[in-house]
Amino acid sequence: MNLRKGNLMSVREDVKLLDATIRDGGLCNNFMFSDEFVKELYKANVKSGIDYMEFGYKASTEMFDENEFGKWKFCKEEDLRSIVGENISDMKIAVMADVGRCDYKKDFLPKKDSVIDMVRVACYIHQIPSAIEMIEYLHELGYETSCNVMAISQASKEQIDGALELLCNSDVDVIYLVDSYGSLYPENATELTTMYVNAAEKVGKKIGFHAHNNQNLAFANTIETLSYGVSYLDATIMGIGRGAGNCATELLLGFLRNPKYNLFSVLKFIEKYMIPLKEQGIVWGFDLQYMFTGQFNMHPREAMKFTSDKRRDYCNFYESLIDNV
Amino acid sequence: MNLRKGNLMSVREDVKLLDATIRDGGLCNNFMFSDEFVKELYKANVKSGIDYMEFGYKASTEMFDENEFGKWKFCKEEDLRSIVGENISDMKIAVMADVGRCDYKKDFLPKKDSVIDMVRVACYIHQIPSAIEMIEYLHELGYETSCNVMAISQASKEQIDGALELLCNSDVDVIYLVDSYGSLYPENATELTTMYVNAAEKVGKKIGFHAHNNQNLAFANTIETLSYGVSYLDATIMGIGRGAGNCATELLLGFLRNPKYNLFSVLKFIEKYMIPLKEQGIVWGFDLQYMFTGQFNMHPREAMKFTSDKRRDYCNFYESLIDNV
Repeated sequence: MNLRKGNLMSVREDVKLLDATIRDGGLCNNFMFSDEFVKELYKANVKSGIDYMEFGYKASTEMFDENEFGKWKFCKEEDLRSIVGENISDMKIAVMADVGRCDYKKDFLPKKDSVIDMVRVACYIHQIPSAIEMIEYLHELGYETSCNVMAISQASKEQIDGALELLCNSDVDVIYLVDSYGSLYPENATELTTMYVNAAEKVGKKIGFHAHNNQNLAFANTIETLSYGVSYLDATIMGIGRGAGNCATELLLGFLRNPKYNLFSVLKFIEKYMIPLKEQGIVWGFDLQYMFTGQFNMHPREAMKFTSDKRRDYCNFYESLIDNV
Repeated sequence: MNLRKGNLMSVREDVKLLDATIRDGGLCNNFMFSDEFVKELYKANVKSGIDYMEFGYKASTEMFDENEFGKWKFCKEEDLRSIVGENISDMKIAVMADVGRCDYKKDFLPKKDSVIDMVRVACYIHQIPSAIEMIEYLHELGYETSCNVMAISQASKEQIDGALELLCNSDVDVIYLVDSYGSLYPENATELTTMYVNAAEKVGKKIGFHAHNNQNLAFANTIETLSYGVSYLDATIMGIGRGAGNCATELLLGFLRNPKYNLFSVLKFIEKYMIPLKEQGIVWGFDLQYMFTGQFNMHPREAMKFTSDKRRDYCNFYESLIDNV
């Protein structure tokens, strides 16, 4: 029995492409993007048929110093509107809110007063009850919501079953499988997908996938989980994102068959804005240090430090990780 | 029905890892590797448990000028022996011979007089009758043989069925699925694998897979086809190879569960020899120009020229390809 949904020529109307360039890429430069960069990205995404654009985090201004971060860590309504106006496009606007790092009761307006369409609530698996409390509140305000359960490669099957049961009984719209450590292979990513899809289909919810590229599998895992029933696909332009980065939008746009998607506007953005960003010295992408933490199913923080220290002694680093596994 | 062979914890004794660093990497530097580089790679491969090391091509010295290429384009017996002696290791020695570009009747010794164990015959699908003539000759001399049928993404199902029938009736030991253009997705790579494995299992032959990284899928396609029954896996260190390069050995060593494989010796080689090679300006690996030709299922020659011309005008290049598709 082939569990794939459709084939390589199918247009699946449930598929939604979410651009997380500013949000995940912001982790590489403390969200210090120029207004021009964000505005041109918005235009490029609209032209390329992207379904959602995530602008950043809705982080607590009490916990985080606004002088240390660019405005996309906070995504204030007026900053969003300075880019998108009333957002008359078909593309929806998303922001992320981390459990325990936001003041959601203070910082979210009722949906009718906001250009934000979707709030993505990120949490670890033990924080799901807190996430659900947030989701119910935001749902009441009128937002679409997702729950992005991180570091799923370290959870047991029983934990995942429990998490899915809680989420399927909540008002959340989309449940995300998040491979935070980039440690999943297509084979186990698709097994997890099947668990998620089976649970979600019964209650009319959708599944999303957020990849990391530690083992150079971000794109592969995204299209494989897609073919097993994931609907919401996260990507960033040139895969920009913390550490090894994410699934690259341009790879995904070449794969998807829906004629509403087109690559060319994203290419123009890459040539004009992303290549210069790389040349300014902002570093992301696959490298051996991230491969190690992916292979060991570990948080990449030590690999990120190895990168920022400009170290090249891969063997020493590998040995130090083995000592900690 | 799950068609995968084994699971993510399985040790499959049929799996063989072939290092093609000198052969495919040689296409990046005209085979101009130092003796030290090749000797240290040989030692690293032996220590890492690699099953086969491919040293290069057995190209015709009448067709190709020996002054223009390093010695690994020709793989003379005395040059091989200067590196491996009698090759008392468990690792086997392979060379590649292209249909129409070698003088196989002149240049191969009987196996008993050679340190070469396996000859890999590369051809396009219409050259299979010529490839089989070579294979029968080399089999008679005592060599293991493979037939590496290139550019398979452009062949029809009927052509592939015909090719498999011819090869399954020959003395070839291993039939390779070669994704020359890096255009296969895991979904169609595994479908092709199933065709190959079904044909080969009946006659006791093995299947190999050779990936290219144009869409950043070289590693993913290698482990996915592996799980559907491919036994021979080609890889190169850091994925070195023409254009977008190949499946990286270090990724594969992290995936395989057989305790005979270990990553550390390859890491030491990377740190000491591969990083300097990159710093010398030898260029390979995933980049947008190769992604385009992969998406279009085209030969990468124009992308290689784009790279060697140090062009950065991706949009112009993309438009020129569309005009030619």
